[in-house]
Amino acid sequence: TPTEILDATHSALCDHGYAELTMQDIADQTDLCKASIHYHYDGKHDLLLAYLDHLYEQFEDRLSAPADEGRHADDPAARLRSLITSLLTERSDAPAFQTALLEIKAQSPYDDAFRERLRRFDDAFAEAVREVVAEGVADGTFHEDVDPDAVASFLTTYVNGAQTRHAAVGHPLDDSAAAVDAYIDRALRADQPTSTGGGPSSETVDVGGTE
Amino acid sequence: TPTEILDATHSALCDHGYAELTMQDIADQTDLCKASIHYHYDGKHDLLLAYLDHLYEQFEDRLSAPADEGRHADDPAARLRSLITSLLTERSDAPAFQTALLEIKAQSPYDDAFRERLRRFDDAFAEAVREVVAEGVADGTFHEDVDPDAVASFLTTYVNGAQTRHAAVGHPLDDSAAAVDAYIDRALRADQPTSTGGGPSSETVDVGGTE
Repeated sequence: TPTEILDATHSALCDHGYAELTMQDIADQTDLCKASIHYHYDGKHDLLLAYLDHLYEQFEDRLSAPADEGRHADDPAARLRSLITSLLTERSDAPAFQTALLEIKAQSPYDDAFRERLRRFDDAFAEAVREVVAEGVADGTFHEDVDPDAVASFLTTYVNGAQTRHAAVGHPLDDSAAAVDAYIDRALRADQPTSTGGGPSSETVDVGGTE
Repeated sequence: TPTEILDATHSALCDHGYAELTMQDIADQTDLCKASIHYHYDGKHDLLLAYLDHLYEQFEDRLSAPADEGRHADDPAARLRSLITSLLTERSDAPAFQTALLEIKAQSPYDDAFRERLRRFDDAFAEAVREVVAEGVADGTFHEDVDPDAVASFLTTYVNGAQTRHAAVGHPLDDSAAAVDAYIDRALRADQPTSTGGGPSSETVDVGGTE
């Protein structure tokens, strides 16, 4: 039942947004009555915190997944790309979910419990990026003077921007995801291919501008 | 009086945020009574739209300023940096203003008039970035295969992220502004200095990774 309620919270958030969301909206997405939900959660705020914790668990699972699965396991650039695009994938509920997420972020300055949870997402994502960039520097995929901490913060900021721009002005998530390829190739890769067609095995290209 | 009311709207937004803002809060920042403000503006929504239009005029002035003023006028990299940092400057009212701005962005999916205005900011900023990047490509500061449209969109997304992260989790705007230097040096500059100390006149460095 808790999982059912949290799934219903997700659907209700996508349908109604955060500000207008009521416990009745959430009950309407389940076979339960509002009283049953109140039995488990004190109110909307309490339920939203449980929802964010649930989302964080899924988020942690997703962050650790790319390293475990076989494909790209030995290519830090591909793993970095999949880490970022996993947060920028157009799902059918993407615009509504991104809108609700943005409302929660906008509420965060007024709500320490929200803020604490959003910080956990922020820290976990930055740490996952930092790890894969550090591996890429260590195995020579990325240039030796790339700073994993700086890149992690830069890309965490970028992902926040892609989500905000998507919700606020309708900029496509896919476009934001695709633009990261050029960043990885030009700013991080040791072999710095000058066209996006170059893979990790492409020849070293002198892009030093010795024209 | 209109300017006085719009300045009062800014102060009241910073003090109270968007969601809780009332016409009385705005009147309290002026010598006017609430009725006088209602004489000029139908209500909170109408006044907020006028405020956003006022903000846009200031924004346009700021975007065109770096090209006019003497310093850095001939250095596209420095102009690009100042364009971005102009939106990421820590002012005394920055956290409160960024919070209000994020609330307005989060309201945008529900409000076409807000959305239209936010799109104007988005378009104007991206166009200003595109112009300075295109100039940098033309004069050889930036690498010849840098795509000004792609960089403009990338950096517009990044600036949105810096503003969101600042308001939502308290990530310092200064840190986000500083991180752009590494991006400009590594991803855009034709001479690609390997240390951040390098200026536009630094020697060509082979960063092809021929270790």
